[in-house]
Amino acid sequence: MTVSIAHLGPAGTNTEAAALAYAKGLAQTGISAQLYPCASIPQTLRITAQGQVDVAVVPVENSIEGSVGMTLDTLWRLDTLQIQQALVLPISHALLSQATCLTTIRTVYSHPQALAQCQGWIEKNLNSVQQIPSNSTTEALQYLNDDRTAAAIASTRAAELYHLPILAHPINDYPDNSTRFWVLAKQPSPGGLHTSLAFTLPANVPGALVKPLQVFFNRRINLSHIESRPAKRLLGEYLFFIDLEADASQTSIQWAIAELTPYIETLKIFGSYNILPIQ
Amino acid sequence: MTVSIAHLGPAGTNTEAAALAYAKGLAQTGISAQLYPCASIPQTLRITAQGQVDVAVVPVENSIEGSVGMTLDTLWRLDTLQIQQALVLPISHALLSQATCLTTIRTVYSHPQALAQCQGWIEKNLNSVQQIPSNSTTEALQYLNDDRTAAAIASTRAAELYHLPILAHPINDYPDNSTRFWVLAKQPSPGGLHTSLAFTLPANVPGALVKPLQVFFNRRINLSHIESRPAKRLLGEYLFFIDLEADASQTSIQWAIAELTPYIETLKIFGSYNILPIQ
Repeated sequence: MTVSIAHLGPAGTNTEAAALAYAKGLAQTGISAQLYPCASIPQTLRITAQGQVDVAVVPVENSIEGSVGMTLDTLWRLDTLQIQQALVLPISHALLSQATCLTTIRTVYSHPQALAQCQGWIEKNLNSVQQIPSNSTTEALQYLNDDRTAAAIASTRAAELYHLPILAHPINDYPDNSTRFWVLAKQPSPGGLHTSLAFTLPANVPGALVKPLQVFFNRRINLSHIESRPAKRLLGEYLFFIDLEADASQTSIQWAIAELTPYIETLKIFGSYNILPIQ
Repeated sequence: MTVSIAHLGPAGTNTEAAALAYAKGLAQTGISAQLYPCASIPQTLRITAQGQVDVAVVPVENSIEGSVGMTLDTLWRLDTLQIQQALVLPISHALLSQATCLTTIRTVYSHPQALAQCQGWIEKNLNSVQQIPSNSTTEALQYLNDDRTAAAIASTRAAELYHLPILAHPINDYPDNSTRFWVLAKQPSPGGLHTSLAFTLPANVPGALVKPLQVFFNRRINLSHIESRPAKRLLGEYLFFIDLEADASQTSIQWAIAELTPYIETLKIFGSYNILPIQ
């Protein structure tokens, strides 16, 4: 049996590394995998929801840059995908360039999140270079072959794949940099120690967020993350994405979810799953 | 008297429009203003904290794309700036190009937030064009003069400033698109109906966020926004940014802040201020 996996491409991105780690896990159970690199996160999720591929691997949160709004917003809209597993991947950035020393570099290309994660290092070591954002860390590499004054921030794996020299590594400002990914599919989630859900609150009710949080607190269900996203109507209206340390099949969490009803407007449960660290 | 205002440049960005609106308000009180366009949000805030300019105008939150992480993270680190005023600016995007019709367009350049805010329109009207991110909506315009197959997403004001034709307007997917800005300075904030603060929570305390929120709820102080940002140590540790509908000079809010102490680790108060809508 072969499982098709959609992810943000091209080859060499961190999302591809997460997809490969998931594929490796499948291989251990005798299932082979085929990767489908996509142009964007919404496209990755959409073709999975439409049944063109079996699963999607998407970034949810980075330990430095925070939540990936595009992933949460698309997931809320699509309404059909359930989380099968979470993956946590350590992220380290390298400076790739054909230049022989740092002083000859004039421009640095990379994905905006990668540039942001290396700001301190860039200001210290590449002062006054121009920083140019690209669609992915891999896309940034195309500028390196023709221009010896250009550098790109990408993974050491991308350096290998595209045969590019590493000038400095690691260059991320915070050593404990990691990204959490979700594996999503149309099938029900398998259950596990973590549950993710999102809700909107009724408009113009003061302190409306306290009530749902109290429901979980009173039942001793720990909240590991809360994220507000704009409801995309008026400034000041939000969706709340919540990660719970609990399995939605437990009676206590089922009761808690029932108790939420009077305090919230719309509730979407994205499933219960386990987190797998990747080495 | 002249007040110097730092903002994300160059001329034609939405942040410059907010800075100009603030300058207009100053002019009505007989104070003139000089604008200092900066290369990035951190630079805008840093030169203000260092006293090189009087005030900084920075984006905080967009009604579609959510909070501006770079602004919140830099403000937490700098520790010296207070909010003087908030400004809410309606945002509308236009498609600028030398092309005579949409079908000849091959690439669209813009700031990632502007591209994201027009995704639906692009997919419907410019299917299969390449989308290329730029550092600002204004920077995207440089590609238009030499290439009649290129388009950029920017404001109608940028079209006027740089003498570029508008091919379509408005093209944002959600009509009620607006951005909230903060005016920050080293002087104490003037007081007003809104207070912004941020705190970290002690590690490994289950339900740690509920307690501080309950303090405000019990005193009937409404929370208009909560935002979690990574503490940049480990995945799962956060700073919480909170906007309250209250003035920090009121006794009830001073008591509430005193009551927070046992439940939080570090607290930073960014001041009390009023919100000014911009037409």
